[in-house]
Amino acid sequence: MIQRLCIIGVGLIGGSIAKAARKQGLCREIVGADADPINLARAIELGVVDSGYDAGTTGGVVKAADGADWVVIATPAGAAMRTLSKLKPVWAKEAIYTDVGSIKQQVISAAKNVFGEMPSNFVPGHPIAGAERSGVDAATDDLYQNKRVILTPTMETALSAARLVEGFWTSLGALVSNMEPLHHDQIFAATSHLPHVLAYALVHMLGSRDDQGEIFQYAGAGFRDFTRIASSNPEMWRDICVLNCDQIAPLMSSMGDELKRVASLMEGNSVESAENLLIYFAEARNARQRILNQLENNQ
Amino acid sequence: MIQRLCIIGVGLIGGSIAKAARKQGLCREIVGADADPINLARAIELGVVDSGYDAGTTGGVVKAADGADWVVIATPAGAAMRTLSKLKPVWAKEAIYTDVGSIKQQVISAAKNVFGEMPSNFVPGHPIAGAERSGVDAATDDLYQNKRVILTPTMETALSAARLVEGFWTSLGALVSNMEPLHHDQIFAATSHLPHVLAYALVHMLGSRDDQGEIFQYAGAGFRDFTRIASSNPEMWRDICVLNCDQIAPLMSSMGDELKRVASLMEGNSVESAENLLIYFAEARNARQRILNQLENNQ
Repeated sequence: MIQRLCIIGVGLIGGSIAKAARKQGLCREIVGADADPINLARAIELGVVDSGYDAGTTGGVVKAADGADWVVIATPAGAAMRTLSKLKPVWAKEAIYTDVGSIKQQVISAAKNVFGEMPSNFVPGHPIAGAERSGVDAATDDLYQNKRVILTPTMETALSAARLVEGFWTSLGALVSNMEPLHHDQIFAATSHLPHVLAYALVHMLGSRDDQGEIFQYAGAGFRDFTRIASSNPEMWRDICVLNCDQIAPLMSSMGDELKRVASLMEGNSVESAENLLIYFAEARNARQRILNQLENNQ
Repeated sequence: MIQRLCIIGVGLIGGSIAKAARKQGLCREIVGADADPINLARAIELGVVDSGYDAGTTGGVVKAADGADWVVIATPAGAAMRTLSKLKPVWAKEAIYTDVGSIKQQVISAAKNVFGEMPSNFVPGHPIAGAERSGVDAATDDLYQNKRVILTPTMETALSAARLVEGFWTSLGALVSNMEPLHHDQIFAATSHLPHVLAYALVHMLGSRDDQGEIFQYAGAGFRDFTRIASSNPEMWRDICVLNCDQIAPLMSSMGDELKRVASLMEGNSVESAENLLIYFAEARNARQRILNQLENNQ
């Protein structure tokens, strides 16, 4: 059993880890740290954490992590990288460290920069359980039930640490798999980061129009679903886009080419181009059906 | 009361009109026509229509519409335009005609071409109640409950006909408003057509990759929602894109520029560009919140 679980960043993700770990009886005590004093006070008030410190300062992170045998960095990736430096003074060889960031290569690079090498007891992770809500009020004890968690241990990671983190997530109900950090960042650039950028860009473009008040009046359920991810945490997505830019930017450029291709079929003004547009849409629909079938089989 | 309601195209939209009209006791008899013999047989089997004819032939449409006092063209816009020609031999001055197409200007042009002028008893309409399912099996009697329906009567439309169609939709539970045809096509290019093209293009692009099997394994709920509209009827969307190309293509080009703008902020590699990216995402999130608030107020 974990004696002192330290969670840095007690938002939707960190708060849900705390609630689920408590429910499963995985730990005796939970110490939280958060850069937002209102959210931190709320986490304590709700009993999600037993005590709390300011994650914005090295002193606060040191107090929260000192003596902890399990530390989860549950902040957006940029803050996670800064948190590693703050943790350095109290980094304990016998403790386990993990994170939840949506990108993995840059977090690993940051760890190598801070510690001179990748610490063998730091197991980078990424739970696939985002939502457009954020903050501790949105946290639930079943957020990770049947959700995927990807771990990206490196050559330097101790097998024992990787196994413990895998067991931790499994206890929270998650389905754990392992992946190379670069491969992780490529896959999520395609299926998560690019769609988020598209949704943000569309809403930003339409939201800048003078007639936005009127156009949105007629937005249907399709529009609402399509843009749901544009309500995600802007700080988190700034970090992801900047830190995984090498993987995302080429996909955005490909998407621009793809749109030009569709526009040329639309504008073709011939029976043949209309037929090709129909084939294009049908292929896309079939591809999505393959995805849904696969997701179903994986459940 | 409508004596003989003729519905051409007994899919999700037309089938739901039939079911709702029957439930509300608006009509004595419902005659259907559909170009798909399997769907037509199913519509008869389910009792959605009392009898049915082949909408693919002029003979079938003539038989279905002959003697009808109310005709709803509930096909995709391209087929609706062809249906107007097929209806010409039995077009009755005392009957009411309406359609459900997602674009309005080209349907009105087609009517003018077929009849030499816009018939005063044809009231173009557009219920905002799409779904990714299609076919009569997906039809329900409450599809239009609290959904918006836009009517785009022209200067030639008889006020009496417009009032009757408005009353028809209101009886099915819909919230009816009126709009200029061009204005309608511009608004829906922004909030519906462009998002559909983006979803189709993204899924097509990712679905063409060799590693699609693996990348989709990790697609989350966000991806599923974002791409839901890429499961829409390809024939319907081919028609919309070709027929409303003048409104959609410029928006696709703007979207390409918007993506370049985001990419340059991502690649800026400075504190300032990262800060601007954060502002950009926050503005988009705020715009979406304004949309949601507005949609809620309109309900």
